[in-house]
Amino acid sequence: MDRLRSCFSAVGADAFLVTHLPNIQYLCGFTGSAGVLLVEAQRAVLFTDSRYTFQARQEVHSARVEIAQGGLLAATSKALGRRRGRTRLGFSPSQLTVTQRTALDNSLGRRLRWVDGGNAVEKIRAIKDARELERMRGAAVLISRVFERVLPLIKTGMSELQVAAELEYSMKEEGATGPSFETIVAAGPHSAWAHARPSAKLLRKSQLVVLDQGAILHGYCSDMTRTVFLGRASAHVRRLYGAVLAAQEAAKAAIRPGVTGEEVDAAARRILKGERLAQYFTHSTGHGLGLEVHEMPRLGRGEETRLEAGMVVTVEPGVYIEGFGGIRIEDDVLVTPNGAADLTTAPRELLEL
Amino acid sequence: MDRLRSCFSAVGADAFLVTHLPNIQYLCGFTGSAGVLLVEAQRAVLFTDSRYTFQARQEVHSARVEIAQGGLLAATSKALGRRRGRTRLGFSPSQLTVTQRTALDNSLGRRLRWVDGGNAVEKIRAIKDARELERMRGAAVLISRVFERVLPLIKTGMSELQVAAELEYSMKEEGATGPSFETIVAAGPHSAWAHARPSAKLLRKSQLVVLDQGAILHGYCSDMTRTVFLGRASAHVRRLYGAVLAAQEAAKAAIRPGVTGEEVDAAARRILKGERLAQYFTHSTGHGLGLEVHEMPRLGRGEETRLEAGMVVTVEPGVYIEGFGGIRIEDDVLVTPNGAADLTTAPRELLEL
Repeated sequence: MDRLRSCFSAVGADAFLVTHLPNIQYLCGFTGSAGVLLVEAQRAVLFTDSRYTFQARQEVHSARVEIAQGGLLAATSKALGRRRGRTRLGFSPSQLTVTQRTALDNSLGRRLRWVDGGNAVEKIRAIKDARELERMRGAAVLISRVFERVLPLIKTGMSELQVAAELEYSMKEEGATGPSFETIVAAGPHSAWAHARPSAKLLRKSQLVVLDQGAILHGYCSDMTRTVFLGRASAHVRRLYGAVLAAQEAAKAAIRPGVTGEEVDAAARRILKGERLAQYFTHSTGHGLGLEVHEMPRLGRGEETRLEAGMVVTVEPGVYIEGFGGIRIEDDVLVTPNGAADLTTAPRELLEL
Repeated sequence: MDRLRSCFSAVGADAFLVTHLPNIQYLCGFTGSAGVLLVEAQRAVLFTDSRYTFQARQEVHSARVEIAQGGLLAATSKALGRRRGRTRLGFSPSQLTVTQRTALDNSLGRRLRWVDGGNAVEKIRAIKDARELERMRGAAVLISRVFERVLPLIKTGMSELQVAAELEYSMKEEGATGPSFETIVAAGPHSAWAHARPSAKLLRKSQLVVLDQGAILHGYCSDMTRTVFLGRASAHVRRLYGAVLAAQEAAKAAIRPGVTGEEVDAAARRILKGERLAQYFTHSTGHGLGLEVHEMPRLGRGEETRLEAGMVVTVEPGVYIEGFGGIRIEDDVLVTPNGAADLTTAPRELLEL
């Protein structure tokens, strides 16, 4: 909260309006689904509704809780109205809706001046402290264990959905709150869809299977992909797999403080280009990870954010060939003072089941 | 799409910008996580990114697909820039961020005029057609079956998380894509948190357990709550349970076309007031259900929307007593020409396990 306060005073704001729930959770601990947090120089107040009376009382630190009777925005507006003079209110434009902005403008008029706060809270969140890193390590080890536990169960004749059910069941058995995103299990040509949803289709022999899974533990997300082959892989599949793994290793080797997200992405892309596979790598190399499964920074083209020690990112190059299938290998990686350290631990070599 | 076109021409717009993903799914079938849909009088175009090239090709109907190279907003802006003269662009203010609005304003300037389209797509979505109702019935029957299947497994010594894991595993076994929200399993005093997350706490004898579960089947959500008791319930618990059930029945009896959401809510509240329990009923009576687990209309105070045949709503009164526990009973209900019909089918009487 104090880091946010120095940010907003640096941009000339008197207060900051936080509407994005993961930011609210980060700043004051509240995990409910309805909240607005108003951070002022000397105090902060969380507005939520009556469903969360008991929960807010237990969870919230560093802020007073107010149960709003007539809607969260009306309560926020009332609190701003009680301030003396004009308020320069910091906000994140990508998280405030036109409705929210208009409502506060209508009730406060010239007493409110909006100050673009960019992604102030996201920038703070991007660098994890020791307590957060311990939790992220826990979530990463958990998902690695889940994968290794489910691996022996995967066989032809099971549906993609059944494999996803086993993975998500194991996550909870291992103590996770649940998956950090909809688990992807995609076999055969379906694996060429980078963001496929598991279907009732049955796994068949000689198929690639992409398994992309993540779990939430104590609020923090993991996100790991492995690609396995059902049966003996051909030389072609081995070559593709080797290229993706080499691209992943090159990206990891490029990670250290001071390097941009774009440079890490380029390192992976260069390897795939050398193998004439660049056109099949249709997404970015990775993304930040934390309370949310997609956070700052992005490892992709045009990302100028420089990595700093304490950031956690995914590294997940892939190739997707329509009609044939896809291969992706993804780890969660901590940026250390000298380089990078894997948080996920499951084996990375091609597994033939 | 044609119903949206008549809506936007009614408010004087030439085109409509759809940014909310479930609305995009409803209008053109796309289920990916990144998309902007621009609906014009004679055509529509979905902008998405390269991760979804194959998926969009398979899923999208009624719109052309364009894989945006430099971001979805830039592509949208380019398409709007190709139109002749000024475009009056319909949009939903509660779904457009300040960033999105500013980006289009900056690139199109006076060639763009924004037209407040309210919740146009949500209003269309609130009334389900025959195909949608069949899917919703399927999702409701599925979750009822899941509950009855897991019921015999629930015993003292299991954790809330284990019960949630069993429920979500069964959903997938029964063919669901997955849960429609984070399954709630809350026992003892924890059940007084209306939106509790399952914890590692173990179930103990003589506890109330609230089980709130929903599944997605063919894109459509169900949402059902049952409250069970571990052991023999006291007269006090039976009285509370009976009052909540009576409140639910009163709300269902109040449902028919022409009645407002507020009136249905009042019917439930009246019963609980008669039992001096009104202060423990801390949320609304229900909400619309469909592609999203919370849709229009709300059944709560201040909701003036009148019910229409073909709407699907949850009916879920509850009482929450701090330190003691909570009871909620929730069904999915279809508004019929003459009244209401339950879609969820699990038993509603107090179950003692």
